Amino acid sequence: MGKLVIVGTVAFDAIETPFGKTDKILGGAATYIGLAASQFQADAAIVSVVGGDFPRKYLDLFEQRNIDISALEIIENGKTFFWSGKYRNDLNSRDTLDTQLNVLADFNPKVPEDFKNAEIVMLGNLHPAVQLSVIQQMTSRPKLIILDTMNFWMDNTLDLLKEVIAKVDVITINDEEARQLTGEYSLVVAARKIQEMGPEHVVIKKGEHGALLFHKEQIFFAPALPLEEVFDPTGAGDTFAGGFAGFLSKSDDLSFENMKNAVIYGSTLASFCVEKFGTERMQTVTQKELQKRLHQFKNLTQFEIELT
Amino acid sequence: MGKLVIVGTVAFDAIETPFGKTDKILGGAATYIGLAASQFQADAAIVSVVGGDFPRKYLDLFEQRNIDISALEIIENGKTFFWSGKYRNDLNSRDTLDTQLNVLADFNPKVPEDFKNAEIVMLGNLHPAVQLSVIQQMTSRPKLIILDTMNFWMDNTLDLLKEVIAKVDVITINDEEARQLTGEYSLVVAARKIQEMGPEHVVIKKGEHGALLFHKEQIFFAPALPLEEVFDPTGAGDTFAGGFAGFLSKSDDLSFENMKNAVIYGSTLASFCVEKFGTERMQTVTQKELQKRLHQFKNLTQFEIELT
Repeated sequence: MGKLVIVGTVAFDAIETPFGKTDKILGGAATYIGLAASQFQADAAIVSVVGGDFPRKYLDLFEQRNIDISALEIIENGKTFFWSGKYRNDLNSRDTLDTQLNVLADFNPKVPEDFKNAEIVMLGNLHPAVQLSVIQQMTSRPKLIILDTMNFWMDNTLDLLKEVIAKVDVITINDEEARQLTGEYSLVVAARKIQEMGPEHVVIKKGEHGALLFHKEQIFFAPALPLEEVFDPTGAGDTFAGGFAGFLSKSDDLSFENMKNAVIYGSTLASFCVEKFGTERMQTVTQKELQKRLHQFKNLTQFEIELT
Repeated sequence: MGKLVIVGTVAFDAIETPFGKTDKILGGAATYIGLAASQFQADAAIVSVVGGDFPRKYLDLFEQRNIDISALEIIENGKTFFWSGKYRNDLNSRDTLDTQLNVLADFNPKVPEDFKNAEIVMLGNLHPAVQLSVIQQMTSRPKLIILDTMNFWMDNTLDLLKEVIAKVDVITINDEEARQLTGEYSLVVAARKIQEMGPEHVVIKKGEHGALLFHKEQIFFAPALPLEEVFDPTGAGDTFAGGFAGFLSKSDDLSFENMKNAVIYGSTLASFCVEKFGTERMQTVTQKELQKRLHQFKNLTQFEIELT
C-alpha cells in the first residue's frame, strides 16, 4: 500500500440539471478524487485550500475516511472556491453560470512532509502552476504521477500545461480536449501524439461513451455502465480518476494489465457518482454495492470466443 | 449450419466523404449483409431486385461466395435502386443527395422454395411491407427473425413497422432511432420498451461508440474497434447485422452468451467495412485478418478482476 497525494479543488458547487437544482453543496476535484480513493482505504492526503466559510462537517467527512487534511489549508478570512453550472437536457453539455476563485486565486500548495515520498501523485484539475509546484516538492520521484486537466488551461496557459504534461506518467483528458491538444480528430492518433509529449499512458474519457486507455501499441476500452437515468454528471471524471489512482495505490502494480483493472474500478465508481447530486452517492456507496456493480461490468463486457 | 434468408436492397451507391468520392458503386443492405454472412460460409439466399443495368460481375461476386441469388430478381427494362450521400467532416452524420427507388418501387419479394424453412431470416432495412411479406412466406416459423430498420419508416409507415416489430426476435436499430421509437432518452429504458413491443433481443447501434445488446435484464456492450482513420461508414450497420446473423447461422446456438459472440463478430467485421469505400474492403477481408482483429478486440475489452 503506497501513499497517495491528491491535489485539486475543494469547493462549493451549485448545480442545476433537468431533474432539479442544489444550493451550495460540497464539490471540487480533490473532494471527488479523495472520496473515490477512500474506497480502497488509500493512505491519501489532500493538498488544497478552503475559506473560513467551509463547514466543519465536510472536514469531518474527509477525516472519517482517513484522508489526511493537514495540507488542506483554511484561510479563515477568505471564501471557498465556488462554481455554479447548469446542464442541458441531454446532460452531455453544461454551461458555467458562475466561477468565483476566492481563496484559490493565491493558492500556494504545500505537500505534507510525510507525503513528500508518496508513491502516487494525483494532480486534479487545477492551474498547471499549482500542479507543477506539487511535483517539485516531492523529494523522490513518485512511481506514478497522474494528471487531470481541461480545455480552460489549454486556452489560457498552454506552455505551462505542456511543461506539466512532460513530467507525468498518466494523463486523463476528455475526447474533445485530446483533439484540441493535438489537432487530431482520430483519438488513436491523438493518443499517440500525447504520448510523444511525455505521458506513457493516456486515458481519454468519453463520458457516457466510456474511456480508452492507451499505452504504446496497446489499447483498452471500458464502457460507462448503462444506467436507467443519469441524475448529475458533476464529478464523474474526478471520481474516475480517484478510483483509478486509489486502486493502483492499493494494488502496487503498475503493469498495463493492472491499469486495465484501475480503469474498470474508476468507471464503476463513476457510475455511482452520477446517480445523485454532487457527492451524495459517493458518501454512501458500500463495498458490497461496488462488488455487485463490478459483476455487472463483467457481464456487460466479457465474452468467450475461442480464437485460433 | 442453418439456412439464412436475407432480404434487403441491392443497389448502386455514390458516396462522398472528406477523403474522396465515388461514382456508382455496389451497395445496398442485402449486399453488405450477404458479404458479411459469407465470412461464415453461411447457406444464404438474397431476396431482392435489381435492374437490367446491374453488372454481371456483381452477380458473380455473390455466386463466388455461395450466396443463392435465385431470388434476386432482375427487371431487364428497369433501373437498379440508386442512393447518393455525402458525409460531413466528422463522418458521424450524412446528407442524402439523391434517392431513386427505380425497380424497388414495385418490389414483390419471393423467398426461394428451398429457403422457406430457413432457420434464420435477416430482414435488412427496406419497406416494412416487403419485410412482412417475407415473414409470411416462411412455411415454418424461423428460429430467429432479425429486423433492421431506420427512422424513415418510423416517420412514414409506423403502424406497419410496428406490425413487423411485433413478429421478430431481434431488432437492430441506432440510438437516435431507439429514442424516436419509444420517446425515451435513456437507452436502457428505450430497450425495455422495445422489448415490450415484441423482440426479445434489442441491439442498439451507436456507430463509433459501439453497440449494446439487451435481453430481459441482461446487457452486453461491444465497442467499435478504435481505428486510426474511418474512411467510409457506409454499410457498417448492415455489415454488423450480416456478421451477427452469419455467425448465429453457423453456430446454431441462440443463447445470450452466444449472441454476445455474434455481436463481437458483427462489430469486428464492421471495423473492416469502414476502412475503404463501399464494399471494397469486405471483398478482400480474409479469415486470418478476421482472427487477428478478434484478438485485438479481446485485448481491447477483456480484463481480469477477481470478484468476491
